Amino acid sequence: MNISQRGLAIQESPIRKLKPYADDAIKRGIRVYFINIGQPDIITPEPVWEAIRNYGEEVLSYGPAQGFLELRQAIADYFVDYNIPLTAENVIITVGGSEAIHFSFSVVADPGEEVIIPEPFYTNYNGYAACANVRIVPLALHVEDGFRLPASEEIEAKISPKTRAILLCSPNNPTGTVYTEEELDRVIDLAVKHELFLISDEVYKEFVYDGAKHKSLLEYEDIKDRVIVVDSISKRFSCCGARVGAVITRNADVYQAVLKFAQARLCPPSIEQKGALAAYRMERSYFDAIREEYQRRRDVLYEGLKDIPGIVVHKPQGAFYFIVKLPIKDCEHFVRWMLTDFELDKETVMVAPAQGFYSTPGRGEDEVRIAYVLKEPDLKRAITVFRAGLDKYLSLFS
Amino acid sequence: MNISQRGLAIQESPIRKLKPYADDAIKRGIRVYFINIGQPDIITPEPVWEAIRNYGEEVLSYGPAQGFLELRQAIADYFVDYNIPLTAENVIITVGGSEAIHFSFSVVADPGEEVIIPEPFYTNYNGYAACANVRIVPLALHVEDGFRLPASEEIEAKISPKTRAILLCSPNNPTGTVYTEEELDRVIDLAVKHELFLISDEVYKEFVYDGAKHKSLLEYEDIKDRVIVVDSISKRFSCCGARVGAVITRNADVYQAVLKFAQARLCPPSIEQKGALAAYRMERSYFDAIREEYQRRRDVLYEGLKDIPGIVVHKPQGAFYFIVKLPIKDCEHFVRWMLTDFELDKETVMVAPAQGFYSTPGRGEDEVRIAYVLKEPDLKRAITVFRAGLDKYLSLFS
Repeated sequence: MNISQRGLAIQESPIRKLKPYADDAIKRGIRVYFINIGQPDIITPEPVWEAIRNYGEEVLSYGPAQGFLELRQAIADYFVDYNIPLTAENVIITVGGSEAIHFSFSVVADPGEEVIIPEPFYTNYNGYAACANVRIVPLALHVEDGFRLPASEEIEAKISPKTRAILLCSPNNPTGTVYTEEELDRVIDLAVKHELFLISDEVYKEFVYDGAKHKSLLEYEDIKDRVIVVDSISKRFSCCGARVGAVITRNADVYQAVLKFAQARLCPPSIEQKGALAAYRMERSYFDAIREEYQRRRDVLYEGLKDIPGIVVHKPQGAFYFIVKLPIKDCEHFVRWMLTDFELDKETVMVAPAQGFYSTPGRGEDEVRIAYVLKEPDLKRAITVFRAGLDKYLSLFS
Repeated sequence: MNISQRGLAIQESPIRKLKPYADDAIKRGIRVYFINIGQPDIITPEPVWEAIRNYGEEVLSYGPAQGFLELRQAIADYFVDYNIPLTAENVIITVGGSEAIHFSFSVVADPGEEVIIPEPFYTNYNGYAACANVRIVPLALHVEDGFRLPASEEIEAKISPKTRAILLCSPNNPTGTVYTEEELDRVIDLAVKHELFLISDEVYKEFVYDGAKHKSLLEYEDIKDRVIVVDSISKRFSCCGARVGAVITRNADVYQAVLKFAQARLCPPSIEQKGALAAYRMERSYFDAIREEYQRRRDVLYEGLKDIPGIVVHKPQGAFYFIVKLPIKDCEHFVRWMLTDFELDKETVMVAPAQGFYSTPGRGEDEVRIAYVLKEPDLKRAITVFRAGLDKYLSLFS
């Protein structure tokens, strides 16, 4: 009577496993600045709360497996505003972007088959790959060049007879990189040449800075059969706890298969779907202030980090993360030490060891991910505390 | 670029696939009595709505992967009231009972391994088995003896080197059968002898009639390492759309593995968890009136069905379903015909073809599942319409 191999193999959340040390620090009276996770401090819009309060049914009943039609329509309309011609028939509501990833993996690949993902990547891809017994084939990117995609030959070398899809996340978690059209074109060419699906995680779509524009894979009409977009309201509307995401596809076979997986779990949460609907009905100008806010935070963080001796950091173009290479061999030890042994005037900082964002053994051990999810004054203070901790750590351990 | 085998193989929801015919009937002005799905008409308790309205946070943020501690504690306390010594450390909140099933399958079995399930069974087990690439080995039960478990030898004959667990659902969906202690003892003996897990779906725990008591597998102290309970608030508190369930286990390894799967999908919906907490804090007497209501409905349905010539029906002891054998070879055709071609004074009835509750090809084609989820007057009228439809159908097609 043993646990399954996949139950043993699935990785513990590298972001969450250090949380108990943070809890202990708080118990000791330390203020911890959490810049380890992508939990924004942006207030959830009032229309969302209002819709939730006014749900207005007597029975909290099952909704449709594919989500409420009004919400599917609202999401389609949202993309139409970006000149992407979608209808509600292209949208299936999922339990967060998480479930959208899981469904996408399950529909494109059978156990033992492969999905290529540029590395570092969002750590929960590992969890869903383990869950679906899909093998992630990492494509190594590097902090030194800002995590740009390598030459086509290098990508192509990762393609095997078992490859079923390439997954791109842009704007990227954890690197903040936004792929250029040239990069996308090269990946698309390979997908066409080798008959692969393209899974596109675009949950940070709105978070692109310096006036740049995010290019969705849904904009490429000639490969519309190939594209499966993973979407979510978690970051878009600061609704992480709502668990409302979507699979978006114009491939009818993919849609039908995803729908069957969706039917097995009955429906997404009803109440939060109404909240999501209200969010999509807000003015699009909602994002302007938020985008500016994040861009300022990114600049503050970049200015605070770039001249630290011995570190490597690239200014990201989107999302709200940095991957930073530190002059430290074992960043997990450093992150833990910051929580257990360090304080500056009763304050410390929690960042995420980057190792969990890599699947190649040994990669990322000298890197951390920092999320700029705090207000500017807090972020500035967090940088000061982080730098002091880093200095102290280096003086002790190197 | 093809859909995965599992994406093709996963069954379309047999309950939902006929829904378009019902929608068409409604468009034609027909009133449809829906006794095909387990969506109770019981009003969701006011404390649930109140808790949802008063969520009281500014940011709808991620909660813990294992669910809010207060809710896990409340669920543990609920079982303590049944003399089952649980703590919050035995409870992981899931996205509905659906996810609890999925996690349970994933943790006990690897792709190609087997779980034995008495048949007919809740159709979504098929979906999650497909999703997790676990093979369901059906153990044939029969309407003629009220779906009692067969002799131990017959059960044991289903156990192979690949068997990892036996799943029991009691009170049962779709049969309404409540297993006796003698039946449970026999299954437990086999699980011990062959080193198997016992997955116990107890989401209908409270719905047991005629003064009978539901026996939970959690009550067996000596096999506590072996038991994984699938739980849900969907039926318990008429909160189907909340998507709040739980995995309950006292096996620490199972708990840790489930927790890792839970971490991959971040967290269950936050708002509905607060609703669930309020539900668990209600007086336990809440269930008395509801149990009486369902028992009355069951009696009404049984009285209305039992003397129909040519049908086989057994009075169930729990849940809110009947499996009824009809003198019809293809009940799916009958169910569809009731929606497309039949009406009695502008009314018709939708029941569920039972075939989808079986995985053995050919079984269940002459059966339907009827859910007593309507108020007594509606249920009575639904029976009248159903009988009239059945008479008409038999006169036309036999």
